[in-house]
Amino acid sequence: MSSHHIVRDKQEPALLIANGEACQPELMGQLLEWSPVVVVLDSAIWRVLDLGIKVDVLLGDFDRALDLDTIRAQQYPLEVVHAPDQNKTDLEKGIEYLIEHGFPAVNIIWATGRRADHSLTNMTSIVRYKDQIRIVLLDDYSKIFPLVGRFEKWYEAGTTISLIPVGTVTGIATEGLLYNLHDESLRLGYRTGSSNEAARDGFVRITAGEGDLLIMECWD
Amino acid sequence: MSSHHIVRDKQEPALLIANGEACQPELMGQLLEWSPVVVVLDSAIWRVLDLGIKVDVLLGDFDRALDLDTIRAQQYPLEVVHAPDQNKTDLEKGIEYLIEHGFPAVNIIWATGRRADHSLTNMTSIVRYKDQIRIVLLDDYSKIFPLVGRFEKWYEAGTTISLIPVGTVTGIATEGLLYNLHDESLRLGYRTGSSNEAARDGFVRITAGEGDLLIMECWD
Repeated sequence: MSSHHIVRDKQEPALLIANGEACQPELMGQLLEWSPVVVVLDSAIWRVLDLGIKVDVLLGDFDRALDLDTIRAQQYPLEVVHAPDQNKTDLEKGIEYLIEHGFPAVNIIWATGRRADHSLTNMTSIVRYKDQIRIVLLDDYSKIFPLVGRFEKWYEAGTTISLIPVGTVTGIATEGLLYNLHDESLRLGYRTGSSNEAARDGFVRITAGEGDLLIMECWD
Repeated sequence: MSSHHIVRDKQEPALLIANGEACQPELMGQLLEWSPVVVVLDSAIWRVLDLGIKVDVLLGDFDRALDLDTIRAQQYPLEVVHAPDQNKTDLEKGIEYLIEHGFPAVNIIWATGRRADHSLTNMTSIVRYKDQIRIVLLDDYSKIFPLVGRFEKWYEAGTTISLIPVGTVTGIATEGLLYNLHDESLRLGYRTGSSNEAARDGFVRITAGEGDLLIMECWD
């Protein structure tokens, strides 16, 4: 995979656009403000082209044939990465591409909504890469990221913070939440920490023992 | 919890309407065709009332105060069930209500989309009740249900069938899929069976050992 035309500073998180529900233009506008490297997954490219966004990389298995000539006519230069591995989702391939190319962080959008299998797999598979790249997955109602080490962030009182285990997570300890956990376990499907909230203006702190925990800031 | 006015035959699946993204009217129309008992969760009631649907039960923690007088003026009779337990989601309480009242099956809609924490928790928490009530969760792109015992169904060739483990599922064996599994394990976040498909017109068969497996029929 070559990346000869990606010459911008890689300190800025890349923007990875998947093939789920589109977000509001405001969210995309915020994420594009610092001109990140933009990677688009497979047939999402048509919806992205309609928005007039500069795309750097188009990646996918292209199992539904894409008319690359038409796409290239609208976007030049455009790196096209054919990633046919059927054992990985396009989102996983996109994240791995960014890891291989040295990006320290990525914001992911359009990865939720529409097909439930994609949505559930996308939200949970980001934990696999948590030690290799900083990942934040965003949509119009949610900001999702994996717990890595110790989490500490200042929140306004009442901010919704959900703790969702991908499988089982043990030894979870929190401070600053309305319902704090004290060396407790959560198990997806049976006991999750959905719809917790910041108890007061101040820091929320979260640590865990074994397992993969997603932290979700959500709003209606 | 009384249910004095629910006098219809409980052989028909109940319809549980959650508080996520609304589905297309066509899907709701199909599910309403046999006049199921309709249970609505919390503030979704306003959107449901706008659709002119007859509601039997309104259930929730009502943490954002609902004007029940206004609601009752539009829906009579209406059973209102106040379920304040903060350790369970409204969807879990709705399913438990139906189990307690002897329903053998429920179709769930509006449980995906919008807030990612709700969506992920809703999709996965149905496995907890799989031995007590038949559950199918539907949206405009997906039909989701837990594997219970041995699954066997006829599909057209190419129908997308995703196998999503809620946590880890061992001993999965399939027949009739394009990528069959032979006593294999899946683990959420690491290895899922997303976007498999029926290999040909015919029966697909799925069994598993330990763990909770979701079967998802999805389409774009």
